[in-house]
Formats: sequence, structure tokens, C-alpha cells
Amino acid sequence: MEETWFFEKHTPHAGLSLAVEKSLFDAQSGFQRVEVLQTAEFGRMLVLDNCVMLTDRDEFIYHEMIVHPALLCHGRAERVLIIGGGDGGSAREAVRHAGVEQVHLVEIDPMVPEVSRKFFPALSVGLDHPKVEVFVADGFDHLDHHPNSYDAVIVDSIDPVGEAAKLFTEAFYRKVKKALRPGGVLVCQTESPFYNGDVLRGVVERLSGIYAHTAPYLAHIPTYPSGLWSFAFASDAGHPLEAELDWNADFVPFLKYLTPDVFRAAFALPAYLQKQLGSPGGQ
Amino acid sequence: MEETWFFEKHTPHAGLSLAVEKSLFDAQSGFQRVEVLQTAEFGRMLVLDNCVMLTDRDEFIYHEMIVHPALLCHGRAERVLIIGGGDGGSAREAVRHAGVEQVHLVEIDPMVPEVSRKFFPALSVGLDHPKVEVFVADGFDHLDHHPNSYDAVIVDSIDPVGEAAKLFTEAFYRKVKKALRPGGVLVCQTESPFYNGDVLRGVVERLSGIYAHTAPYLAHIPTYPSGLWSFAFASDAGHPLEAELDWNADFVPFLKYLTPDVFRAAFALPAYLQKQLGSPGGQ
Repeated sequence: MEETWFFEKHTPHAGLSLAVEKSLFDAQSGFQRVEVLQTAEFGRMLVLDNCVMLTDRDEFIYHEMIVHPALLCHGRAERVLIIGGGDGGSAREAVRHAGVEQVHLVEIDPMVPEVSRKFFPALSVGLDHPKVEVFVADGFDHLDHHPNSYDAVIVDSIDPVGEAAKLFTEAFYRKVKKALRPGGVLVCQTESPFYNGDVLRGVVERLSGIYAHTAPYLAHIPTYPSGLWSFAFASDAGHPLEAELDWNADFVPFLKYLTPDVFRAAFALPAYLQKQLGSPGGQ
Repeated sequence: MEETWFFEKHTPHAGLSLAVEKSLFDAQSGFQRVEVLQTAEFGRMLVLDNCVMLTDRDEFIYHEMIVHPALLCHGRAERVLIIGGGDGGSAREAVRHAGVEQVHLVEIDPMVPEVSRKFFPALSVGLDHPKVEVFVADGFDHLDHHPNSYDAVIVDSIDPVGEAAKLFTEAFYRKVKKALRPGGVLVCQTESPFYNGDVLRGVVERLSGIYAHTAPYLAHIPTYPSGLWSFAFASDAGHPLEAELDWNADFVPFLKYLTPDVFRAAFALPAYLQKQLGSPGGQ
């Protein structure tokens, strides 16, 4: 069998190569090219427009880190909105919190949940959980129709190009704020801080003008560009490092990445990134 | 100009691809193939036996993190031994500590310092610093001839294959211990904890049998396998997280990665790694 390799350019001059055993799915949706590849190193892999979205082997890191810091800091979140995240991984993590009563998941591309249900049962379990309702819709519109509705909004989006670019704008963050109930928290994924620190800086700047507390944080995700990924936390209620967190909660034993020490560590930004963000820790 | 790409397999099925503008050096030494490539994304890159050793753009992370935790924790190190590190980067960082009076650097392959002096002046400055003495020799032999001589030993080695494999053995760590003065500290590089957690586990186990305090720690290095790298700290004097560190020292303003928060964060291990190491934090 001839070996084939998937190659994602993380920049025009650098990228990740992964040996592919088999292509399991390849189609053009109304929004993007959707592929599922069987890789030798990372198991099944979801690829959108030639960008790795997730792999069986390391998806737990991204999904734990985009969901749990928000819900831990809130402490008593009942209603959660996930924008994007059509694979179900973020919903799966959200419903691990016993206090969460309802998760709305708003995915613009119906092919993503369809493909997840077929090829990623360990993620799509989140789509089909009784507490989760999936909307195939535009996140902007959904926010407009749900004022004062959510305790946590998780923006599990693709990169800020094309349709997704508007999910990184000030207008969007203001809509999120209107959709949040008092004490609500927002977390969004904000790209590689090594290659695209400008994206994180822009998001932090925009959020800082809208929310009382903004905090970027990091996680190590091997299949994402540079292996280091960033997220932005925002809330009027308090800073994550000052929150009282319930590490005795039911979901904690399921964690494969996050620990109390890793939580705190995630907010420690390398000096080069602090410099790029223009303030210590972006705080 | 046709584009050429360097490809390092991090596992048989995954690796990093970097666009190469020009090959600047390529020769076989008595120990390994030594290449210097001009990359488009990371500047000049030193490659030994097709493994990326360092690049202009991200070498600061590795060199800061292999040197400063050891010297910060010791607090008053005067004599430092670097085993490997023939490029000079670790020596450059060590002599930033005002209290360091002498650095011995023991590199087995004379071609590495030679190439560094020619192509990596920002690193080889460490080789030619008046406090630094370079020995072209075997680290084992050097240790045998220098009992009770060093406050810190930094093992800046290549991967544990071939000649370098012995630098990961219990016999080696015992020799290091004999070469350390009272209160001395050892730090060694211990591979990717994501792909090669077994290497880290083995080192931590061996060190734990010899030193009172052993602590693995992490840094994010984009051009290294998985983007996450590990180091092991060992000392009889105390645990790094209990040490009093002088963050007002002269070298601190030069740091581009390490900060007080990043120092503490580096010792926070993801849950999957704690599990692999068999004890929380390996402590």
C-alpha cells in the first residue's frame, strides 16, 4: 500500500504532516470541504477546508479547555450556549457538569453534526444528549433571539476567515453579552499564540472594552498550529484566578488534561506573548 | 525557484514540514550528519541526523527553560557544567547569571561548536564567553575527572539513541551526583511528553532513586515533536516549587519565555501525563 500523507500548512512555510491510512469521507458542504481521514498516529481526524479540527487522540485537550474553565469559574451555570462545535465534543464536556440543565448548540453547517454522528461517536454523544438541543443556524441570529438567556457562551469556531470572521468582531462580543445572564461568562478559541498572536491580541482588546474581566489562557494541542493554542475568557463577574472552583465536582475524575494546577498554569503567558498583548498576562 | 521542504518524522506517522530556502551546510561528522538550513519560517536551523536541534526563532524557549530553572533554584551557583549544548545556547543563558564564575561545556562532536560559530553567532557567543571553557570530550569521562566540582549540571543532549543513550541511564545520573557539590542541581532534557512519555517516566524513576527531589517540567517549543517538551529537575537540596527565587536578578529582563508565573506553570503536568508518570506531578 502506498503511503499517503495529509499536510496542513500552519503558515505558508511550516506545517504538520500526518500519514493517512484511508479517506473515510470527503464532500463539499454549503460552507466548506468536510473530510474524515483515518490517520496512523492520531486515529480518525475531522478536517474542514484542509485544517485539522480534531483527532480522536488529542481532541480531549481542546474540548476540556474550551468548556471547563468557563463552567468552573461560573460555578452554577444552568444554561449554556455553544456557537459552532457541531462535532459535539464541547457539548459532551458541558453536560458533564451536573448543574447544567440545557445546552443550546448552534452550528451553521449541517454536514458537521451529520459526519460526527457517523464517524465520531465519542463526540457526537454530546449532540444526542437529552440536555442538548442542536440548532442548524447562524450564531449571530441565534444570539439576537435569545437575550438574557445563558450563563456561559462557548465560541467553538473555526479560524477567523470567511463566514467565521464575524465571530471575532466587537459586534459579535456585544451580542454575546446581551445573551448572557448576570454573572455570565464567555470563552472563545483564539488561534495559535505563537503564529497568530495578533488574533489573540485583537480579541482581548475587543473583549476588554466590553467585559470587566478578560483573561487569555493556553493549552497544548499537538495537532494544532505550533502545538500551542489560546482561548479568551471574559466576564463581568470576576477573574478566573480569583474564582472559587469546585474541584470535587462529579466531572473532575473524567478529566484527562485539566487539573487544578493546569488550570492556574494555563493563564501563565510566556513573556513573548505578554509583550505582544501589551500587558502582563493580558489582565 | 522550486520550493524545497525539510521534513522531520516525529513518529513514523507524524512530523513537521518546514520550507527551506537554502542549505547552508551539510556534512558528516564523526558522530552524526550536521546540517544548517535556512528556513522561511524559523530562520536558520541546526539539524542533527535529520532532527531539528534549534532554530533562530524558537531556540530561546529551550535554552531559557533548560538553564534558568536550575540556576534560579540553586540561587548561588558558581560552577556550572553543560553536557552537550555544543551550539552555545545553554552557555549563553548560564553566564547571564552574575554569580556564575565558570561554565564547563563538554561536547563530544567538535563539528557542532564549529558550525555554531559560523552560522549561529547569537548562540556561539556562549561558547566564546570568558567564563566558558569548551571541552571536546565524552561527558562520562569528564564527570569521572571532576568530582564534587559543580553547583549545576545541565544535560543538553540529543535524543536517547546511539552515543547519547547512555546520558539517560542510572549510571550516568550517579556520576552526575558525584560531580555535584552539596546543594547541587541537575536538569536534563527528556523528550516530548506527548509522544515519548516513557522516556520522561524512565528518567524520573531513575532520578527519584538517587536524588531527594525530582520534578519534571514542561515548555512549549513549536519546532520540537508535538510542540511540548519536557525536562527533569533533580536535587537533594529542595523541590523547585519550594525554592526562594530571585526574580530581581540581572538576567530576568532578558527573558523572552520564562516569567515567575511561567516557572510555576511549567511544573503543572496535564492529567494524562501525571497518570503516565504514576504519581501526581511526579513529585
